[in-house]
Amino acid sequence: MKEVMCIIRLNKVNKTKESLAEAGFPSITCRKVLGRGKKSIDMALIESYVESGEIQSSSYGENLSERGRLIPKRFITLVVNDDEVKTVVDTIMSVNSTGTPGDGKIFILPIEEVYRVRDGQTGESAI
Amino acid sequence: MKEVMCIIRLNKVNKTKESLAEAGFPSITCRKVLGRGKKSIDMALIESYVESGEIQSSSYGENLSERGRLIPKRFITLVVNDDEVKTVVDTIMSVNSTGTPGDGKIFILPIEEVYRVRDGQTGESAI
Amino acid sequence: MKEVMCIIRLNKVNKTKESLAEAGFPSITCRKVLGRGKKSIDMALIESYVESGEIQSSSYGENLSERGRLIPKRFITLVVNDDEVKTVVDTIMSVNSTGTPGDGKIFILPIEEVYRVRDGQTGESAI
Repeated sequence: MKEVMCIIRLNKVNKTKESLAEAGFPSITCRKVLGRGKKSIDMALIESYVESGEIQSSSYGENLSERGRLIPKRFITLVVNDDEVKTVVDTIMSVNSTGTPGDGKIFILPIEEVYRVRDGQTGESAI
Repeated sequence: MKEVMCIIRLNKVNKTKESLAEAGFPSITCRKVLGRGKKSIDMALIESYVESGEIQSSSYGENLSERGRLIPKRFITLVVNDDEVKTVVDTIMSVNSTGTPGDGKIFILPIEEVYRVRDGQTGESAI
Repeated sequence: MKEVMCIIRLNKVNKTKESLAEAGFPSITCRKVLGRGKKSIDMALIESYVESGEIQSSSYGENLSERGRLIPKRFITLVVNDDEVKTVVDTIMSVNSTGTPGDGKIFILPIEEVYRVRDGQTGESAI
């Protein structure tokens, strides 16, 4: 089993959820995060995010400092069987890839065991 | 060392913290998350959550869209020695298992190293 | 590749971001978390945090219960190449180590693969 974690743009969350559900992966967890990549974040880029509706001016203002600016992102994680990783990655890529910096990253981590709390079921059938 | 991550109901957080502390595992980290499992979420289920006080109507309304609805959950994570995983899992299960969908999941991940920031201590004694 | 996750004090976030960027690691993700370590949290400690400006009284009051008190912390995570882990750990330690309880922890997890969403690039060059 693997954990597929992705950091994506705010305005891609709904479409990503829909596409994952349609591909057979409705079980996800979503969190608010702040982040940045390698590219230094200039205010022109921030303004373009505000204009496109990706973020609201009020939501980043309080979190930005002169150095090490971070912008709001969404973090989605799901646990899948090994042979499902490619489908999940392809689904996330197809929705989120715009070809421009800030599209995000996908990370694959090993999961050693999973337990379904309701009945104690373990392994792939518990996902 | 292993990371034990669990996604549980909001109204189980305090009891889970207490039980883990009593079992010798006070060191935890807790986050707010939104999530869902395989089961499609119908409004009757949401209403039952509101009635039981598990979630407040105001807290899910803004986050639900017609497709891919997510509900508020709590995410607790702790890092323990390999031989402590079973006790931690059993403790979480005993508090959170109600036998109904939505009880949550527990995931076990490998941790390769841990550092205590205060003094640089590594390994199991640093947990 | 490895994920370096750290849980640190609120008032160390900006300096940690700056130091990581200066060391060549600007790409981070930051989240708000609540947590505690082994040490039981007494109100004198909490008061000292408030006095030092590390936390605001309003931010912990609502989250503390009589048992299993948690205090606000920040969670920073970044993914780096294997040979960069030591530099990242040293950088985080140098900023955050005050020698007193509550300085936090650093965890190292294995990352099996990474994808850059923009162009599908994988592996170390995608980080």
